[in-house]
Amino acid sequence: MRVLGIDPGLRNMGWGVIDVDGPRISHVANGICKSEKGELAGRLLVLFDQLCQVVTDYQPTTAAVEQTFVNRDGAGTLKLGQARGIAMLVPARAGLSVGEYAPNAVKKAVVGAGHADKKQVDHMVRLQLPGVQIAGADAADALAIAICHAHHATSAGHLAAALKKAMA
Amino acid sequence: MRVLGIDPGLRNMGWGVIDVDGPRISHVANGICKSEKGELAGRLLVLFDQLCQVVTDYQPTTAAVEQTFVNRDGAGTLKLGQARGIAMLVPARAGLSVGEYAPNAVKKAVVGAGHADKKQVDHMVRLQLPGVQIAGADAADALAIAICHAHHATSAGHLAAALKKAMA
Repeated sequence: MRVLGIDPGLRNMGWGVIDVDGPRISHVANGICKSEKGELAGRLLVLFDQLCQVVTDYQPTTAAVEQTFVNRDGAGTLKLGQARGIAMLVPARAGLSVGEYAPNAVKKAVVGAGHADKKQVDHMVRLQLPGVQIAGADAADALAIAICHAHHATSAGHLAAALKKAMA
Repeated sequence: MRVLGIDPGLRNMGWGVIDVDGPRISHVANGICKSEKGELAGRLLVLFDQLCQVVTDYQPTTAAVEQTFVNRDGAGTLKLGQARGIAMLVPARAGLSVGEYAPNAVKKAVVGAGHADKKQVDHMVRLQLPGVQIAGADAADALAIAICHAHHATSAGHLAAALKKAMA
């Protein structure tokens, strides 16, 4: 299983790809899609094109996107929503299932605690993917989302196997 | 000039296409892209595919999307933002410029008053495009957005022509 994790953002869209083989995970690639200036439609197109390129280059078999934190800043929520629409669309268009995980679920999967801070997440991602060059905080978050998805998929796989065995 | 107007929404995405020749406008087509059930990524993909088909079928030369009303319901704003990301992306991907208009600007262009209600907008759209079958309220809103874009583009064209004449 090859997982694409995406941390959505309009200015910086982090992405990370990992291979998952049972309990073992290994790093494939990570980076940040950027759209810094210009009109909104053009910026969304830039993110779309860059993310499509990631899918073409690394051929993930499943994807996961962080559930955006909804805050009181409506304009900020709207911006993030628009970027998140692109983050969900690109893997769906490639025929991948797209998991969604709340920030706390991601932290719990990676650090073991739902209220870990960003530094702890970054630290644990680096521990689990030793020696990897990480493009920045958004790419580290994206790798954390991919790791979270791997945990959930592996647990679901174990459960399915156990059920199959029990019913055999 | 052929204008595609889009009224973004996750469940119902209204669209309308009009031809603009100086002060004259004429109806080309209108409809509603729908994504009613299932996972978010799949729903966004359905909207994307349907909207791409509209662009392929009717070959607009410019587009306009309503600026979403940001309210206190963060989850609702996020949903709308995700749908709006798709509404902005599709015409940008076809190489079109994408105008953005606030609801009040649309109402003012169509009815003459920024605080007109939905019924008035619907009524004025039908008056300006007589005999047209309109697919529903979201399609009427999309046609209103297209009419608003036509007004702005025509005014901008007049201004450019006047400036050119004055400077000749």
